Amino acid sequence: MQSDPPRPPFTEWVRSSNNVTQQFLSLGQRPDVVSLAGGLPATELYPVDAVRRATMQALDRWGAAALEYGAVEGLPALRELIAERTSIETGAHFGAANVLLTEGSMQGLDLLGKVLIDAGERVVVQSPTYLGALDAWRPRRPAYQRLDWDADAAQLRGAKFVYAVPNYSNPTGVLVPQAQRVALLEQVRAAGTWLVEDDPYQPLQLDGPAGASILQHAATHDGAAYSGPVIYLGTVSKSLAPGLRVGWVIAEPGMIETLALAKQGTDLSSSLLTQAITLELLRERVDHEHGQAIVAAYRERRDALCREAALHLSEWFEWQVPHGGMFVWMRAKNQAIDTNELYRLALDEDVAFVPSSVFDFAGVDRFAMRLNFTRASPQRLAEGVRRLASATRRYLRAAS
Amino acid sequence: MQSDPPRPPFTEWVRSSNNVTQQFLSLGQRPDVVSLAGGLPATELYPVDAVRRATMQALDRWGAAALEYGAVEGLPALRELIAERTSIETGAHFGAANVLLTEGSMQGLDLLGKVLIDAGERVVVQSPTYLGALDAWRPRRPAYQRLDWDADAAQLRGAKFVYAVPNYSNPTGVLVPQAQRVALLEQVRAAGTWLVEDDPYQPLQLDGPAGASILQHAATHDGAAYSGPVIYLGTVSKSLAPGLRVGWVIAEPGMIETLALAKQGTDLSSSLLTQAITLELLRERVDHEHGQAIVAAYRERRDALCREAALHLSEWFEWQVPHGGMFVWMRAKNQAIDTNELYRLALDEDVAFVPSSVFDFAGVDRFAMRLNFTRASPQRLAEGVRRLASATRRYLRAAS
Repeated sequence: MQSDPPRPPFTEWVRSSNNVTQQFLSLGQRPDVVSLAGGLPATELYPVDAVRRATMQALDRWGAAALEYGAVEGLPALRELIAERTSIETGAHFGAANVLLTEGSMQGLDLLGKVLIDAGERVVVQSPTYLGALDAWRPRRPAYQRLDWDADAAQLRGAKFVYAVPNYSNPTGVLVPQAQRVALLEQVRAAGTWLVEDDPYQPLQLDGPAGASILQHAATHDGAAYSGPVIYLGTVSKSLAPGLRVGWVIAEPGMIETLALAKQGTDLSSSLLTQAITLELLRERVDHEHGQAIVAAYRERRDALCREAALHLSEWFEWQVPHGGMFVWMRAKNQAIDTNELYRLALDEDVAFVPSSVFDFAGVDRFAMRLNFTRASPQRLAEGVRRLASATRRYLRAAS
Repeated sequence: MQSDPPRPPFTEWVRSSNNVTQQFLSLGQRPDVVSLAGGLPATELYPVDAVRRATMQALDRWGAAALEYGAVEGLPALRELIAERTSIETGAHFGAANVLLTEGSMQGLDLLGKVLIDAGERVVVQSPTYLGALDAWRPRRPAYQRLDWDADAAQLRGAKFVYAVPNYSNPTGVLVPQAQRVALLEQVRAAGTWLVEDDPYQPLQLDGPAGASILQHAATHDGAAYSGPVIYLGTVSKSLAPGLRVGWVIAEPGMIETLALAKQGTDLSSSLLTQAITLELLRERVDHEHGQAIVAAYRERRDALCREAALHLSEWFEWQVPHGGMFVWMRAKNQAIDTNELYRLALDEDVAFVPSSVFDFAGVDRFAMRLNFTRASPQRLAEGVRRLASATRRYLRAAS
C-alpha cells in the first residue's frame, strides 16, 4: 500500500513556538506538588450560591432571549452598566459605545493583536511582560521593544501601541506610581500611539487604594463621550469567577467598532447566558462583597508567604512585598542561580513556580521567579517556600 | 493648543474590509422588517426549562469547580461524551484526545486559520462559501481557490486545507452526495492536505437521513485512535441553543494539541459553566428531543416559504427545495437582476435577505440570494416572499 504524502506544515508562529506554558500549567496540577506557579484564584472562595441565584434570576428575566446569539458587542444592559460604573469611578463620561464585552480580558488581547499588529510591526511592552499577552500576539508576529516608563515620545513614535499592567503587574507585582502613569500618557499622546492598560488586579488592592487608572487620567470632563488613546481591559475573573469568562474593553468608539468586527470573525458573540448572569451579580454588587472576602484572605496568604520567605529564601533572593495582586517576584541575588535550572530541582522537591524566562519576549532573563500566593492555604504556602529553599540549597551545592 | 498626531492605522485586513455583514445583521433586526436574512434558530423553541434544570444540576454536581478557569481543551467529561457519541455514530474509535471544545464552531474556524494560514497561502473552499469562514480567515490573508468536488489531487496539492459544508451547505442548502464525499476524501489524501468538514446543520435533516459524514469515511476501523485528514466541526447551536456557545473540533491528536496552543492565546479557556450545563443537557438527550421539535417546525416553515415562492417568485428565480438546514438559495433566471441592488429595494418594502456577493470570496457573484426559513412563522415567511416579489417587480420596472 502506497502511503499518503505528508500533510501541510503549521504556520510559522506555531513552528517557532513551544508548549512551555502548558508544561508549567500541567505540572502545577499534580496534587503532591505545592504549586506557586499558576495565577488562579482560591477555589473555595468562589460565590457559588450567588451564581446559582443569579442564574435563576437571569433565566426568569430573559427567558429564551438568554439562549440566543448575542450582539457581537455584548449584552447591551451589561455594556451600559460597565460604562456607568466607569463614569462614576473616573468622573468622566463613558457610554455603551465605549464598551465591548469579551471572553475574559484575554480575548481583548487577541482582538487587539488582530486589528493593530501586522507582522514585524513594533509593540512596546512593560517588561517583564504578562505571558498571556505574548501568547495572544504570537500569531501576529510583532517586534517587541521594552517599555521605559520615563520614555520620551521619540522612543514611542511608530509603535502600534504600548502595553502595561500598572496595578500590581504580572509578573512583578509592581504598582506603578501616579506620576509615571501621567508622564507615560503624555508621551503616548505626543507620539500618536495607543496605550493598552490591562487591569485584572484592580479588585485585589491589599494595602489601600491603587489610585487612578491611566484611563481616568485620559478621560476628559467636558461631557463628551470618551475618545482618548487609552484602551482599558477589565474582567470579573478576579472579583467574581473566571469560569464566567466575562471581560471588557473600554476605548473610543471607533476602536470598539473595529474590535467588534474582529470579534465577529472570532466567535460571532460571547455567551449571552454568562453575560446575563454577570449582569445580575454586578447589579447586586456581589463583586464588592466577594472582593472584601478575597482581599482579606489574599492578604493573609501574601503575608504567610513573605514571612516564610524572609526566614528561608532571603539569603539567595530579594523581593518587594507587593501591595496587591497575586504574585511575589523574586530576583536572585546570587548570579549563579538560573531559574530555568532551579525549576527542575524544585519539581523534584514537589514545588513549582514560574521562571522569569517565560515573561521575557526575548526568553533570556533567567534570574528571577514568580511565586503565586492566592491559590494555596497559608500553611501550604509556607511548606512550598521551605521546599523551594531546600531545592535552592541542592542547586547551589550541585553548581559549586 | 497643539493637537496630537494621528494614531496608528489598523491592520491591513481591517483597512481592506467592510462592515457589510454587520449592516445586514442590524437591518435584519428592525421589527417592521420581515428578515429572511439571518441564520438564526426560532427563539420560541429554545429549551429554556431544560437549561434551567441543567444549570442547577451542573452547579450541584461541580460546585465551585464549574466557576474555575477550565483546561484549554475543555471540560474532560464533555470531550469524552462527544468522543463516545462520535465513535458510536461512525463505528470507529475516537477518544478525548481527538476533541477540542470551542466557543461555537466559529472559534474552530478562527483557530484553524491561526495554525494553518500564513499570508498568501492557498485554501480551497466550497463556493459559494459560509460568510463566517471568510470573516474568520480575513486576518490571516489567505489566497482562495474554488472547490471542484470532482477535482483530482493535482488541483489540491499545496493547499493548506479544503473547506466544505457537505450537509445542507450555507448558503446553498446543497446536500453533497456520498459518492462525491468519498471521491474528494481520496483526492485530499493523495494530495497530502487537510479537509475541514463544517457540519452545523447535521441536526436539521428535514427529509430523511443525510448519510455518512466525510469524517466517518475517513475513520478507520482498526481500533486505533482517529488519525485521518478530516477536521470536523460540530456545535450545539442548532440542536440546543447558540447562547451556550459550545462547539467542538474533532481531529487527529496532533492537530487538537496545536489548536489548543492557539486557543490558549485566544481566550485561555471557554466557560466551564456553559460546558457543564451542556454536558447535563447532552446526557439527558435534550438535544434529541429538542431536535425532533425543531425539525418538525422547520419543515413546516421551509414548505411555507417554498410554496409561496412558487406562486410569486418563480418567474424570476429558480431554486432547489433543500432537504435540510436553514436556507433556500435562489438564483436569478433574469440576467438583469443584481441582488446587491435588489437588496436596497427589498428594504424599502420591509423585507431583508442576504445577497450572494457576501458568500463569494471575490465579491463578484450578484446573481443569487439566500433566504432563511427558520426564524419567522409560516405566515411571516409568506408575507416576506410577497414583499420580495413586489420589490423585484419594482426593481425590474426601474431597470427597464
